[in-house]
Amino acid sequence: MYRVYGDMLSGNCYKIKLLMCLLNIEHEWQHVDIMAGETRTPEFMAINNNAKIPLLKIDDANYLSESNAILNFLAEGSEYLPDSGLARARVLQWQFFEQYSHEPYIAVARFINKFLGLPADRQQEYNDKQSGGHKALAVMEQQLLKTVYLTGESPTIADISLYAYTHVADEGGFSLKQYPSIIRWCADIAALPGYVVMARENA
Amino acid sequence: MYRVYGDMLSGNCYKIKLLMCLLNIEHEWQHVDIMAGETRTPEFMAINNNAKIPLLKIDDANYLSESNAILNFLAEGSEYLPDSGLARARVLQWQFFEQYSHEPYIAVARFINKFLGLPADRQQEYNDKQSGGHKALAVMEQQLLKTVYLTGESPTIADISLYAYTHVADEGGFSLKQYPSIIRWCADIAALPGYVVMARENA
Repeated sequence: MYRVYGDMLSGNCYKIKLLMCLLNIEHEWQHVDIMAGETRTPEFMAINNNAKIPLLKIDDANYLSESNAILNFLAEGSEYLPDSGLARARVLQWQFFEQYSHEPYIAVARFINKFLGLPADRQQEYNDKQSGGHKALAVMEQQLLKTVYLTGESPTIADISLYAYTHVADEGGFSLKQYPSIIRWCADIAALPGYVVMARENA
Repeated sequence: MYRVYGDMLSGNCYKIKLLMCLLNIEHEWQHVDIMAGETRTPEFMAINNNAKIPLLKIDDANYLSESNAILNFLAEGSEYLPDSGLARARVLQWQFFEQYSHEPYIAVARFINKFLGLPADRQQEYNDKQSGGHKALAVMEQQLLKTVYLTGESPTIADISLYAYTHVADEGGFSLKQYPSIIRWCADIAALPGYVVMARENA
């Protein structure tokens, strides 16, 4: 059985839980406390030397890191990942957009605010994250005006990837009110059979 | 025929050229000058509203952005991308590592130094990039001590992705001298049939 090392309140970790619930994939969840340094112990770094969660244990010899790589691995052969060609590459386009143009703004602002309590010495950094976050949300809004989901008429792991931090963007200071299509899309995802709320008690 | 919008001196763009040369994929290259604002014109934003290069034109109706998504699209069915399963996901693990843990340090430090001339008001940011960049290089070194290429005994697009900015890391202030396995790996990649040097005249 798969084991996930993660924290449900981390969007990158929640992605994995959400897909596993949507696809009904059996797994166990091991909570890892980043704030307590649990990703930097010798034991953890022996299984992921980049010292990050989520981490998927496939078997005693094989671990996979990077949330979006894990989603691709788990979704293969399912309706959440097209088999090949441009449709499959388009999913990746959104996932790389998420890690480079979305997460470093929205997730980091949320972390500074929600987990660190917006300390004075990070207020400037928090402020600086706002314009990049809104730029990413505007790119999403433009797409979601045209299609129900990010890559077309049915949900894929691209939606899972972007949903994770977008639906809690307000915790990073980003109001979604000016993005009606994103609000509509969030509701569509929350209505999928198997959907699970981002909360530690659901891990 | 494919058209690539890019700048050969951008590692993200060079990745595409390098793979196309290794796989002998016919294409035309349209140089885009970021410094002159050419990714922010209405014409360019109509084909990529995230305003970034590289961008692949597949046909009049279809464009694909995000360098690593483009590599996956172009490499499908070739020896540079395993068909499925953990081998394919492992390639993605390294590519997401590249975009989140490597590029934002090494490529950004290089940009500040090589393209902006290390201006005083960005000296602190440049300095701050150094530890993250060395952390990424150390993760790579640890892997390349164990395997010839990042995912095993033959090159994949994971290697192309990481090679792009690693082989010019010195331009961002990162000496590779303390990473002998990375130096060995760079030489192995440069010896692949079809290899092309990162230079505008090779576009």
